[in-house]
Amino acid sequence: MEITRFHQELDQLKMKVLHMAAVTEKAVEKAIQALFERDSDLAQNVIEGDNEINALEVGIDHFCLRLLALEQPMASDLRFIVGCMSISVDLERVADQAVNIAERALYLNQRPALPHYPAIEKLATTCREMLAMSIAAFVDKDSEKARKVCRMDDIADELNARILRHLVDYMVKEVRTVERAIYTIITSRCLERVADHATNIAESVVFFVEGVNVKHQCQQ
Amino acid sequence: MEITRFHQELDQLKMKVLHMAAVTEKAVEKAIQALFERDSDLAQNVIEGDNEINALEVGIDHFCLRLLALEQPMASDLRFIVGCMSISVDLERVADQAVNIAERALYLNQRPALPHYPAIEKLATTCREMLAMSIAAFVDKDSEKARKVCRMDDIADELNARILRHLVDYMVKEVRTVERAIYTIITSRCLERVADHATNIAESVVFFVEGVNVKHQCQQ
Repeated sequence: MEITRFHQELDQLKMKVLHMAAVTEKAVEKAIQALFERDSDLAQNVIEGDNEINALEVGIDHFCLRLLALEQPMASDLRFIVGCMSISVDLERVADQAVNIAERALYLNQRPALPHYPAIEKLATTCREMLAMSIAAFVDKDSEKARKVCRMDDIADELNARILRHLVDYMVKEVRTVERAIYTIITSRCLERVADHATNIAESVVFFVEGVNVKHQCQQ
Repeated sequence: MEITRFHQELDQLKMKVLHMAAVTEKAVEKAIQALFERDSDLAQNVIEGDNEINALEVGIDHFCLRLLALEQPMASDLRFIVGCMSISVDLERVADQAVNIAERALYLNQRPALPHYPAIEKLATTCREMLAMSIAAFVDKDSEKARKVCRMDDIADELNARILRHLVDYMVKEVRTVERAIYTIITSRCLERVADHATNIAESVVFFVEGVNVKHQCQQ
Protein backbone atom coordinates (compact mmCIF):
# COMPACT_ATOMS: atom_id res chain seq x y z
CA MET A 1 0.00 0.00 0.00
CA GLU A 2 2.81 2.34 0.98
CA ILE A 3 4.71 1.31 -2.13
CA THR A 4 1.72 2.10 -4.32
CA ARG A 5 1.45 5.56 -2.80
CA PHE A 6 5.17 6.12 -3.34
CA HIS A 7 4.87 5.15 -6.99
CA GLN A 8 1.94 7.49 -7.36
CA GLU A 9 4.19 10.24 -6.03
CA LEU A 10 6.88 9.33 -8.53
CA ASP A 11 4.24 9.55 -11.29
CA GLN A 12 3.22 12.93 -9.93
CA LEU A 13 6.85 14.05 -10.07
CA LYS A 14 7.09 12.88 -13.67
CA MET A 15 3.97 14.88 -14.54
CA LYS A 16 5.40 17.98 -12.87
CA VAL A 17 8.63 17.72 -14.87
CA LEU A 18 6.65 17.11 -18.07
CA HIS A 19 4.50 20.16 -17.41
CA MET A 20 7.59 22.30 -16.83
CA ALA A 21 9.16 20.84 -19.99
CA ALA A 22 6.07 21.70 -22.06
CA VAL A 23 5.98 25.30 -20.81
CA THR A 24 9.73 25.66 -21.42
CA GLU A 25 9.55 24.22 -24.93
CA LYS A 26 6.75 26.66 -25.69
CA ALA A 27 8.90 29.57 -24.42
CA VAL A 28 11.75 28.54 -26.73
CA GLU A 29 9.38 28.18 -29.67
CA LYS A 30 7.90 31.63 -29.03
CA ALA A 31 11.30 33.29 -28.56
CA ILE A 32 12.48 31.88 -31.88
CA GLN A 33 9.27 32.97 -33.58
CA ALA A 34 9.60 36.46 -32.03
CA LEU A 35 13.08 36.66 -33.55
CA PHE A 36 12.39 35.33 -37.03
CA GLU A 37 8.97 36.91 -37.49
CA ARG A 38 10.05 40.15 -35.78
CA ASP A 39 7.17 39.93 -33.33
CA SER A 40 7.99 42.10 -30.30
CA ASP A 41 4.70 41.41 -28.51
CA LEU A 42 5.55 37.73 -28.53
CA ALA A 43 9.06 38.52 -27.22
CA GLN A 44 7.50 40.49 -24.37
CA ASN A 45 5.21 37.54 -23.66
CA VAL A 46 8.24 35.21 -23.29
CA ILE A 47 9.94 37.62 -20.87
CA GLU A 48 6.80 37.94 -18.74
CA GLY A 49 6.28 34.16 -18.67
CA ASP A 50 9.65 33.42 -17.09
CA ASN A 51 8.45 33.81 -13.49
CA GLU A 52 6.01 30.96 -13.98
CA ILE A 53 8.83 28.64 -15.07
CA ASN A 54 11.02 29.72 -12.14
CA ALA A 55 8.16 28.86 -9.78
CA LEU A 56 7.77 25.43 -11.38
CA GLU A 57 11.47 24.71 -10.75
CA VAL A 58 11.17 25.70 -7.09
CA GLY A 59 8.07 23.49 -6.78
CA ILE A 60 9.86 20.46 -8.25
CA ASP A 61 12.88 21.02 -5.98
CA HIS A 62 10.61 21.07 -2.98
CA PHE A 63 8.65 17.99 -4.04
CA CYS A 64 11.88 16.03 -4.66
CA LEU A 65 13.37 16.97 -1.30
CA ARG A 66 10.21 15.85 0.45
CA LEU A 67 10.32 12.52 -1.40
CA LEU A 68 13.99 12.06 -0.51
CA ALA A 69 13.34 12.86 3.16
CA LEU A 70 10.13 10.92 3.72
CA GLU A 71 10.37 7.95 1.36
CA GLN A 72 14.05 7.10 1.61
CA PRO A 73 14.11 5.75 -1.94
CA MET A 74 16.71 3.30 -3.16
CA ALA A 75 18.50 2.52 -6.41
CA SER A 76 16.56 3.45 -9.53
CA ASP A 77 13.89 5.46 -7.68
CA LEU A 78 16.60 7.51 -6.00
CA ARG A 79 18.31 8.09 -9.35
CA PHE A 80 14.98 9.10 -10.90
CA ILE A 81 14.34 11.73 -8.20
CA VAL A 82 17.87 13.14 -8.36
CA GLY A 83 17.63 13.06 -12.17
CA CYS A 84 14.37 15.06 -12.06
CA MET A 85 16.03 17.70 -9.87
CA SER A 86 18.84 18.08 -12.41
CA ILE A 87 16.44 18.15 -15.34
CA SER A 88 14.36 20.92 -13.77
CA VAL A 89 17.52 23.02 -13.25
CA ASP A 90 18.37 22.57 -16.93
CA LEU A 91 14.83 23.38 -18.05
CA GLU A 92 14.90 26.59 -16.03
CA ARG A 93 18.17 27.56 -17.71
CA VAL A 94 16.69 26.78 -21.11
CA ALA A 95 13.87 29.19 -20.20
CA ASP A 96 16.48 31.82 -19.24
CA GLN A 97 17.97 31.43 -22.71
CA ALA A 98 14.51 31.90 -24.23
CA VAL A 99 14.31 35.19 -22.29
CA ASN A 100 17.76 36.22 -23.54
CA ILE A 101 16.72 35.49 -27.11
CA ALA A 102 13.47 37.44 -26.63
CA GLU A 103 15.43 40.42 -25.24
CA ARG A 104 17.72 40.43 -28.28
CA ALA A 105 14.67 40.12 -30.53
CA LEU A 106 13.18 43.28 -28.93
CA TYR A 107 16.35 45.14 -29.91
CA LEU A 108 16.75 43.63 -33.38
CA ASN A 109 13.08 44.08 -34.32
CA GLN A 110 13.43 47.86 -34.03
CA ARG A 111 16.20 47.93 -36.62
CA PRO A 112 16.41 46.91 -40.29
CA ALA A 113 16.79 43.16 -40.71
CA LEU A 114 20.22 41.75 -41.55
CA PRO A 115 20.40 39.71 -44.77
CA HIS A 116 18.91 36.25 -44.42
CA TYR A 117 21.47 33.67 -43.29
CA PRO A 118 19.96 30.16 -43.18
CA ALA A 119 22.43 28.68 -40.66
CA ILE A 120 20.68 30.58 -37.85
CA GLU A 121 17.33 28.97 -38.65
CA LYS A 122 19.06 25.62 -38.93
CA LEU A 123 20.59 26.11 -35.48
CA ALA A 124 17.18 27.06 -34.06
CA THR A 125 15.63 23.93 -35.58
CA THR A 126 18.46 21.72 -34.27
CA CYS A 127 18.06 23.13 -30.74
CA ARG A 128 14.32 22.60 -30.71
CA GLU A 129 14.75 19.05 -32.01
CA MET A 130 17.33 18.25 -29.35
CA LEU A 131 15.14 19.67 -26.60
CA ALA A 132 12.06 17.76 -27.82
CA MET A 133 14.06 14.53 -28.14
CA SER A 134 15.59 14.87 -24.68
CA ILE A 135 12.10 15.27 -23.22
CA ALA A 136 10.78 12.33 -25.25
CA ALA A 137 13.69 10.27 -23.92
CA PHE A 138 12.66 11.30 -20.39
CA VAL A 139 9.02 10.30 -20.95
CA ASP A 140 9.88 6.93 -22.47
CA LYS A 141 12.90 6.28 -20.19
CA ASP A 142 14.70 5.69 -23.49
CA SER A 143 18.45 5.99 -22.96
CA GLU A 144 19.20 5.17 -26.61
CA LYS A 145 17.26 8.25 -27.70
CA ALA A 146 19.04 10.23 -24.99
CA ARG A 147 22.44 9.19 -26.30
CA LYS A 148 21.34 10.34 -29.76
CA VAL A 149 20.70 13.83 -28.35
CA CYS A 150 24.21 13.89 -26.89
CA ARG A 151 25.67 13.07 -30.27
CA MET A 152 23.74 15.94 -31.89
CA ASP A 153 25.45 18.54 -29.71
CA ASP A 154 28.39 18.79 -32.12
CA ILE A 155 26.02 19.91 -34.89
CA ALA A 156 24.81 22.84 -32.77
CA ASP A 157 28.38 23.79 -31.82
CA GLU A 158 29.47 23.71 -35.44
CA LEU A 159 26.51 25.84 -36.62
CA ASN A 160 27.18 28.40 -33.88
CA ALA A 161 30.86 28.62 -34.90
CA ARG A 162 29.87 29.02 -38.55
CA ILE A 163 27.41 31.83 -37.70
CA LEU A 164 30.11 33.64 -35.70
CA ARG A 165 32.60 33.48 -38.59
CA HIS A 166 29.98 34.61 -41.09
CA LEU A 167 28.88 37.60 -39.02
CA VAL A 168 32.42 38.70 -38.26
CA ASP A 169 33.18 38.77 -41.98
CA TYR A 170 29.92 40.53 -42.67
CA MET A 171 30.36 43.32 -40.14
CA VAL A 172 33.87 44.07 -41.33
CA LYS A 173 32.35 44.83 -44.73
CA GLU A 174 29.22 46.55 -43.38
CA VAL A 175 30.37 48.52 -40.37
CA ARG A 176 27.00 50.11 -39.72
CA THR A 177 25.61 46.63 -38.92
CA VAL A 178 28.06 45.97 -36.06
CA GLU A 179 25.55 46.21 -33.22
CA ARG A 180 22.91 44.11 -34.95
CA ALA A 181 25.52 41.52 -35.92
CA ILE A 182 26.75 41.29 -32.32
CA TYR A 183 23.22 40.86 -31.00
CA THR A 184 22.73 38.11 -33.56
CA ILE A 185 25.98 36.44 -32.44
CA ILE A 186 24.74 36.56 -28.84
CA THR A 187 21.41 35.07 -29.94
CA SER A 188 23.24 32.27 -31.70
CA ARG A 189 25.19 31.50 -28.53
CA CYS A 190 21.91 31.42 -26.59
CA LEU A 191 20.56 28.83 -29.02
CA GLU A 192 23.73 26.82 -28.69
CA ARG A 193 23.31 26.84 -24.91
CA VAL A 194 19.77 25.50 -25.29
CA ALA A 195 21.41 22.58 -27.11
CA ASP A 196 23.91 22.19 -24.24
CA HIS A 197 21.09 22.00 -21.70
CA ALA A 198 19.20 19.50 -23.87
CA THR A 199 22.39 17.43 -23.79
CA ASN A 200 22.51 17.73 -19.99
CA ILE A 201 18.88 16.58 -19.79
CA ALA A 202 19.71 13.62 -22.01
CA GLU A 203 22.67 12.78 -19.77
CA SER A 204 20.33 12.81 -16.76
CA VAL A 205 18.05 10.36 -18.58
CA VAL A 206 20.94 7.97 -19.32
CA PHE A 207 21.91 8.28 -15.66
CA PHE A 208 18.57 7.37 -14.18
CA VAL A 209 17.72 4.67 -16.74
CA GLU A 210 21.09 2.90 -16.86
CA GLY A 211 22.73 4.06 -13.62
CA VAL A 212 25.70 5.23 -15.68
CA ASN A 213 27.15 8.71 -15.36
CA VAL A 214 27.91 9.89 -18.92
CA LYS A 215 28.66 13.52 -18.04
CA HIS A 216 31.71 14.73 -19.95
CA GLN A 217 31.68 11.68 -22.21
CA CYS A 218 28.82 12.49 -24.55
CA GLN A 219 30.30 15.73 -25.77
CA GLN A 220 33.72 14.32 -26.54
CA MET B 1 28.48 5.08 16.54
CA GLU B 2 26.67 4.95 13.22
CA ILE B 3 25.90 8.65 13.55
CA THR B 4 29.57 9.42 14.08
CA ARG B 5 30.50 7.52 10.94
CA PHE B 6 27.81 9.36 8.99
CA HIS B 7 29.12 12.73 10.17
CA GLN B 8 32.61 11.70 9.18
CA GLU B 9 31.24 10.99 5.73
CA LEU B 10 29.60 14.43 5.61
CA ASP B 11 32.97 15.95 6.55
CA GLN B 12 34.58 13.92 3.81
CA LEU B 13 32.00 15.29 1.35
CA LYS B 14 32.76 18.83 2.49
CA MET B 15 36.48 18.21 1.91
CA LYS B 16 35.79 16.84 -1.56
CA VAL B 17 33.78 19.93 -2.51
CA LEU B 18 36.46 22.20 -1.04
CA HIS B 19 39.15 20.43 -3.01
CA MET B 20 37.13 20.82 -6.22
CA ALA B 21 36.50 24.48 -5.35
CA ALA B 22 40.23 25.12 -4.83
CA VAL B 23 41.18 23.52 -8.16
CA THR B 24 38.41 25.44 -9.94
CA GLU B 25 39.39 28.79 -8.38
CA LYS B 26 42.96 28.14 -9.50
CA ALA B 27 41.76 27.44 -13.07
CA VAL B 28 39.87 30.76 -13.14
CA GLU B 29 42.88 32.60 -11.74
CA LYS B 30 45.19 31.07 -14.35
CA ALA B 31 42.76 31.72 -17.23
CA ILE B 32 42.53 35.40 -16.26
CA GLN B 33 46.31 35.62 -15.92
CA ALA B 34 46.74 33.92 -19.31
CA LEU B 35 44.49 36.59 -20.81
CA PHE B 36 45.93 39.69 -19.15
CA GLU B 37 49.58 38.64 -19.23
CA ARG B 38 49.22 37.12 -22.71
CA ASP B 39 50.60 33.79 -21.50
CA SER B 40 49.54 31.06 -23.95
CA ASP B 41 51.36 28.28 -22.10
CA LEU B 42 49.25 29.03 -19.06
CA ALA B 43 46.09 29.05 -21.22
CA GLN B 44 47.03 25.61 -22.54
CA ASN B 45 47.57 24.43 -18.98
CA VAL B 46 44.00 25.50 -18.04
CA ILE B 47 42.54 23.64 -21.03
CA GLU B 48 44.46 20.48 -20.19
CA GLY B 49 43.44 20.64 -16.52
CA ASP B 50 39.71 20.54 -17.24
CA ASN B 51 39.46 16.73 -17.28
CA GLU B 52 40.62 16.59 -13.68
CA ILE B 53 37.80 18.92 -12.61
CA ASN B 54 35.23 16.92 -14.59
CA ALA B 55 36.39 13.78 -12.78
CA LEU B 56 36.04 15.51 -9.41
CA GLU B 57 32.43 16.39 -10.22
CA VAL B 58 31.61 12.80 -11.16
CA GLY B 59 33.26 11.61 -7.93
CA ILE B 60 31.18 13.99 -5.79
CA ASP B 61 27.97 12.96 -7.58
CA HIS B 62 28.74 9.34 -6.87
CA PHE B 63 29.63 9.95 -3.23
CA CYS B 64 26.41 11.96 -2.66
CA LEU B 65 24.20 9.31 -4.25
CA ARG B 66 25.76 6.64 -2.07
CA LEU B 67 25.13 8.77 1.03
CA LEU B 68 21.52 9.39 -0.02
CA ALA B 69 20.93 5.69 -0.67
CA LEU B 70 22.67 4.19 2.34
CA GLU B 71 22.29 6.78 5.07
CA GLN B 72 18.78 8.04 4.41
CA PRO B 73 19.61 11.48 5.78
CA MET B 74 16.97 13.87 7.07
CA ALA B 75 16.44 17.63 7.23
CA SER B 76 19.65 19.67 7.27
CA ASP B 77 21.94 16.72 6.38
CA LEU B 78 19.76 15.97 3.37
CA ARG B 79 19.86 19.61 2.32
CA PHE B 80 23.64 19.66 2.76
CA ILE B 81 24.12 16.64 0.49
CA VAL B 82 21.74 17.94 -2.19
CA GLY B 83 23.40 21.38 -1.87
CA CYS B 84 26.85 19.82 -2.43
CA MET B 85 25.60 18.12 -5.60
CA SER B 86 24.37 21.47 -6.94
CA ILE B 87 27.56 23.25 -5.95
CA SER B 88 29.74 20.70 -7.74
CA VAL B 89 27.67 21.16 -10.92
CA ASP B 90 28.22 24.93 -10.68
CA LEU B 91 31.94 24.53 -9.99
CA GLU B 92 32.29 22.33 -13.04
CA ARG B 93 30.59 24.99 -15.16
CA VAL B 94 32.86 27.65 -13.71
CA ALA B 95 35.78 25.48 -14.84
CA ASP B 96 34.21 25.28 -18.33
CA GLN B 97 34.17 29.07 -18.41
CA ALA B 98 37.85 29.11 -17.41
CA VAL B 99 38.50 26.87 -20.43
CA ASN B 100 36.47 29.19 -22.68
CA ILE B 101 38.48 32.19 -21.44
CA ALA B 102 41.74 30.29 -21.98
CA GLU B 103 40.70 29.40 -25.55
CA ARG B 104 39.95 33.07 -26.32
CA ALA B 105 43.28 34.02 -24.74
CA LEU B 106 45.10 31.64 -27.12
CA TYR B 107 43.53 33.50 -30.04
CA LEU B 108 43.97 37.02 -28.65
CA ASN B 109 47.59 36.47 -27.58
CA GLN B 110 48.60 35.89 -31.20
CA ARG B 111 47.33 39.32 -32.24
CA PRO B 112 48.20 42.88 -31.22
CA ALA B 113 46.64 43.85 -27.90
CA LEU B 114 43.55 46.07 -27.91
CA PRO B 115 43.90 49.32 -25.96
CA HIS B 116 43.71 48.85 -22.22
CA TYR B 117 40.13 49.06 -20.89
CA PRO B 118 40.04 48.79 -17.11
CA ALA B 119 36.41 47.57 -16.81
CA ILE B 120 37.51 44.11 -17.99
CA GLU B 121 40.01 43.79 -15.17
CA LYS B 122 37.42 45.07 -12.75
CA LEU B 123 34.96 42.43 -13.97
CA ALA B 124 37.63 39.72 -13.57
CA THR B 125 38.34 40.89 -10.01
CA THR B 126 34.62 41.00 -9.15
CA CYS B 127 34.10 37.44 -10.44
CA ARG B 128 37.04 36.08 -8.50
CA GLU B 129 35.84 37.84 -5.35
CA MET B 130 32.33 36.45 -5.76
CA LEU B 131 33.63 32.94 -6.32
CA ALA B 132 35.97 33.14 -3.31
CA MET B 133 33.20 34.55 -1.11
CA SER B 134 30.69 31.90 -2.16
CA ILE B 135 33.19 29.19 -1.24
CA ALA B 136 33.99 30.90 2.07
CA ALA B 137 30.24 31.02 2.77
CA PHE B 138 30.11 27.27 2.05
CA VAL B 139 33.02 26.53 4.43
CA ASP B 140 31.61 28.64 7.26
CA LYS B 141 27.94 27.76 6.58
CA ASP B 142 27.50 31.54 6.56
CA SER B 143 24.27 32.42 4.79
CA GLU B 144 24.76 36.15 5.40
CA LYS B 145 27.97 36.06 3.39
CA ALA B 146 26.17 34.01 0.75
CA ARG B 147 23.43 36.62 0.43
CA LYS B 148 26.14 39.27 -0.03
CA VAL B 149 27.45 37.32 -3.05
CA CYS B 150 23.95 37.29 -4.55
CA ARG B 151 23.73 41.05 -4.22
CA MET B 152 27.09 41.46 -6.03
CA ASP B 153 25.76 39.81 -9.18
CA ASP B 154 24.34 43.11 -10.45
CA ILE B 155 27.83 44.64 -10.42
CA ALA B 156 29.12 41.89 -12.72
CA ASP B 157 26.13 42.26 -15.05
CA GLU B 158 26.59 46.01 -15.23
CA LEU B 159 30.33 45.73 -15.98
CA ASN B 160 29.66 43.18 -18.71
CA ALA B 161 27.06 45.47 -20.32
CA ARG B 162 29.47 48.40 -20.13
CA ILE B 163 32.26 46.37 -21.78
CA LEU B 164 29.88 45.34 -24.58
CA ARG B 165 28.87 48.95 -25.28
CA HIS B 166 32.48 50.13 -25.19
CA LEU B 167 33.73 47.47 -27.59
CA VAL B 168 30.86 47.97 -30.03
CA ASP B 169 31.71 51.68 -30.22
CA TYR B 170 35.38 50.87 -30.54
CA MET B 171 35.07 48.40 -33.36
CA VAL B 172 32.87 50.73 -35.39
CA LYS B 173 35.78 53.18 -35.35
CA GLU B 174 38.52 50.56 -35.76
CA VAL B 175 37.11 48.01 -38.16
CA ARG B 176 40.29 45.95 -38.32
CA THR B 177 39.83 45.09 -34.63
CA VAL B 178 36.39 43.47 -35.11
CA GLU B 179 37.52 39.91 -34.48
CA ARG B 180 39.60 40.75 -31.43
CA ALA B 181 36.81 42.91 -30.03
CA ILE B 182 34.28 40.08 -30.44
CA TYR B 183 36.56 37.59 -28.74
CA THR B 184 36.93 40.08 -25.90
CA ILE B 185 33.13 40.46 -25.69
CA ILE B 186 32.82 36.67 -25.47
CA THR B 187 35.49 36.59 -22.76
CA SER B 188 33.59 39.23 -20.83
CA ARG B 189 30.42 37.14 -21.02
CA CYS B 190 32.37 34.12 -19.76
CA LEU B 191 33.48 36.14 -16.74
CA GLU B 192 29.94 37.28 -16.14
CA ARG B 193 28.83 33.64 -16.19
CA VAL B 194 31.44 32.80 -13.54
CA ALA B 195 29.67 35.43 -11.42
CA ASP B 196 26.29 33.77 -12.18
CA HIS B 197 27.60 30.40 -11.02
CA ALA B 198 29.10 31.97 -7.88
CA THR B 199 25.60 33.34 -7.23
CA ASN B 200 24.12 29.87 -7.72
CA ILE B 201 26.66 28.44 -5.25
CA ALA B 202 25.72 31.15 -2.76
CA GLU B 203 22.03 30.28 -3.24
CA SER B 204 22.83 26.63 -2.50
CA VAL B 205 24.53 27.72 0.73
CA VAL B 206 21.49 29.77 1.84
CA PHE B 207 19.37 26.74 1.00
CA PHE B 208 21.25 24.22 3.09
CA VAL B 209 21.93 26.58 6.00
CA GLU B 210 18.49 28.16 6.32
CA GLY B 211 16.29 25.67 4.49
CA VAL B 212 15.04 28.53 2.34
CA ASN B 213 15.02 28.39 -1.45
CA VAL B 214 16.21 31.80 -2.67
CA LYS B 215 16.62 30.85 -6.33
CA HIS B 216 15.25 33.60 -8.58
CA GLN B 217 15.03 36.05 -5.68
CA CYS B 218 18.64 37.04 -5.22
CA GLN B 219 19.10 38.32 -8.74
CA GLN B 220 16.00 40.42 -8.75
